[in-house]
Amino acid sequence: MNALLTDLYQLTMAAGHYQAGKLEERATFELFVRRMPHNRNFLVAAGLAQVVDYLLNLRFTAEDLEYLRALPQFARVDAGFFDYLAGLRFTGDVFAMPEGTPFFPGEPVLTVRAPIVEAQIAETFLIATIAHQSLIATKAARVVEAAAGRAVIEFGTRRAHSPGAGTLGARAAYIGGCIGTSNTQAGLLYGLPVFGTAAHSWVQAFDDELEAFRVLQKLLGENTVYLIDTYDTLEGARKAVALGRPMWGVRIDSGNLVEMSREVRAILDAAGFPDARIMATSDLNEYKILELVAAKAPIDAFGVGTDLATSSDVPSLGAVYKLVEMASGDKRRYTAKFSEGKGTLPGAKQVFRFAAHDLLGCSWECPACTPGTPVVEALLRPVLLGGEPVLPFPTMAESRDRALASLAKLPKSLHTVFDAKEQWKVEISPALHALLESVRNNHIGADA
Amino acid sequence: MNALLTDLYQLTMAAGHYQAGKLEERATFELFVRRMPHNRNFLVAAGLAQVVDYLLNLRFTAEDLEYLRALPQFARVDAGFFDYLAGLRFTGDVFAMPEGTPFFPGEPVLTVRAPIVEAQIAETFLIATIAHQSLIATKAARVVEAAAGRAVIEFGTRRAHSPGAGTLGARAAYIGGCIGTSNTQAGLLYGLPVFGTAAHSWVQAFDDELEAFRVLQKLLGENTVYLIDTYDTLEGARKAVALGRPMWGVRIDSGNLVEMSREVRAILDAAGFPDARIMATSDLNEYKILELVAAKAPIDAFGVGTDLATSSDVPSLGAVYKLVEMASGDKRRYTAKFSEGKGTLPGAKQVFRFAAHDLLGCSWECPACTPGTPVVEALLRPVLLGGEPVLPFPTMAESRDRALASLAKLPKSLHTVFDAKEQWKVEISPALHALLESVRNNHIGADA
Repeated sequence: MNALLTDLYQLTMAAGHYQAGKLEERATFELFVRRMPHNRNFLVAAGLAQVVDYLLNLRFTAEDLEYLRALPQFARVDAGFFDYLAGLRFTGDVFAMPEGTPFFPGEPVLTVRAPIVEAQIAETFLIATIAHQSLIATKAARVVEAAAGRAVIEFGTRRAHSPGAGTLGARAAYIGGCIGTSNTQAGLLYGLPVFGTAAHSWVQAFDDELEAFRVLQKLLGENTVYLIDTYDTLEGARKAVALGRPMWGVRIDSGNLVEMSREVRAILDAAGFPDARIMATSDLNEYKILELVAAKAPIDAFGVGTDLATSSDVPSLGAVYKLVEMASGDKRRYTAKFSEGKGTLPGAKQVFRFAAHDLLGCSWECPACTPGTPVVEALLRPVLLGGEPVLPFPTMAESRDRALASLAKLPKSLHTVFDAKEQWKVEISPALHALLESVRNNHIGADA
Repeated sequence: MNALLTDLYQLTMAAGHYQAGKLEERATFELFVRRMPHNRNFLVAAGLAQVVDYLLNLRFTAEDLEYLRALPQFARVDAGFFDYLAGLRFTGDVFAMPEGTPFFPGEPVLTVRAPIVEAQIAETFLIATIAHQSLIATKAARVVEAAAGRAVIEFGTRRAHSPGAGTLGARAAYIGGCIGTSNTQAGLLYGLPVFGTAAHSWVQAFDDELEAFRVLQKLLGENTVYLIDTYDTLEGARKAVALGRPMWGVRIDSGNLVEMSREVRAILDAAGFPDARIMATSDLNEYKILELVAAKAPIDAFGVGTDLATSSDVPSLGAVYKLVEMASGDKRRYTAKFSEGKGTLPGAKQVFRFAAHDLLGCSWECPACTPGTPVVEALLRPVLLGGEPVLPFPTMAESRDRALASLAKLPKSLHTVFDAKEQWKVEISPALHALLESVRNNHIGADA
């Protein structure tokens, strides 16, 4: 069934390649983002684990093939095509930036080199997975930076674009630097720390707010978070201190968070609970958190939902997956697109990260091999070779550490939630320039 | 596993209700949208089929329980709680607006009445499902209206928030009025019409554009859509007419679509193909389509991707699920929330649709029972009773027809892609007003 999670044209093209006898031709596709979205100065790669899982399990079931056979688009294809699909497995190579790597427009975050049909069918799933998770990991990194050391927890599954997107988004938000999630399934599947105590409905389900708090405290002990704003926030805070320890602290989910957190802090302190913490929720995002932090609101942790789970100010990345090379036997052909505003660079590439810029070069280049060149990191690494995994996959915590450490290395000027004055530079190597010119000239020649 | 696709606090509250001996208490929750988003004058309900499927299959597996047992949040709960969860099934009632129904802020689109833990655990999945699909169905309805009779096809899976969200979004877009989708899995799962022929990579995979077109035509016959802008759009159009019939027409995916479609139309007509159609794609949405239609661009069909699949101008609905009643044996208690800016109305409700307004009343009201009142539609209908489905579920085509017919009945003033001067009126019945006052007075009394 997962093989049908693709655009129909991938399958009509597959039928076309079958009919044209092009099944043996190997294609190289690169997945990249065309332009830096509004108020973004870096992107954080995520979703590779789901891509690998998908490719390793890519199969057409008997039901899938029966469905395709009945579509008018396949009325003219030879019956052998369906036998070919029945046996199709992903046998290609995948190179990718590890999850948690900051990346920039024009840079391939993932490269697929495979028989053309295998590479083509995967396009839809690969873009949707990498773009979605990178979008959320990026948003999380921004929220975490704005929180300036205070904990940020992902609370947005209910506002995600479907429950499943919420689970995947929780994973991505953790890579981006959140300390955990409210999504229990994400806790089990990905080993993420999970958080959560009670909602307003918990308080409402009791005749009395104090009784609701008492039952919760008995259950959760030192993990107790009293949600104090169901009826009256300050009254709620007084009831919380009336019950006292053990507790983690209180949560405020409405009103003016600067004023409320100060008044609540005063109640907690006056009652002898300087160690009781304040968590804030309520349609938060990096912009609002920046203001709360600037106002020195005494908030210890932020729960962030809707705006994180949907990356609401930038709800899509515009990632694309473009053919850059075709190889048939000994023959190799570099391809590019010259459509207005949608051009592409030919040939498989590598992304080299220097201290203050990136270099986009041909995959065979080695800038560090020139004496005197500083050490650089080649960001695209082999993930699958011949359809088989290479190297152990990093843990979630390793990917999160990679994001935090890599982001910390970027210049301070990029660490703003608004557009930086100067974007990170991505230079194009002379060899890649020359390749583009050669493809353009050949193409013009061929058309003349 | 599906039972863990919920926020952890639903499960800690479940443990609390277990410990407090409140498992027999029945709760009524309502799912609604608080405010009409920017540039929206109606919302279109979608996602109910997935809600029903989820509730009928709600189960904790042994693995789920083992995971929960090890969490610190459950360290103090009696072991019987996990046996209770193991046997938990959804046994409650669900009332909902049928898919395709237009709805408005404050109106419950779904009501759940069930033992409190069953109703509570479902919250996260229910909101995420109904809000996501209603968001996309609403966006689709807007795009379809802007297209003024031209076909709209959903092409956005690769830009959706995960591949699975793309499949569910394709379903919702069809309910909103799209004629079909490029998502093959959605075609199989939901019986949607599927569309798609070839991408730029198809053209690039051949040495020659004309040869790429020729192989496609041989495969697809009258379904052939030549994608003509890989290198030069007008050259592409000339190659298409050089091959001639059979074909459906051509697709343009870049450049100025008004000018390009006119020039391409002229080439098609001059070559004797007045019946060849033009499809346009390229980051379209309702605003751009409105302009293309106003400019009389000769475009016959629109393929809409990113902005439809993510509802990019309004990427979340802010749907909530609020406790409105508790019942324990003979005792019934109406609940409301008085938080600043987040208040709720107590009691289970019904939504009555009149010709020019809606009436939000108590569930037991019958406005049409008063002589002289015009016939009204009660929008919330039973879907599950005692955990069992009632009435056959509508087909996808019926839900789509319902949306198109119901939207056509709304006043012309609401049919704009911008904010209408006057929004649809949702009145509150005198009985519901009285209930709110009574709850507020009781609450203040209780707290005093």
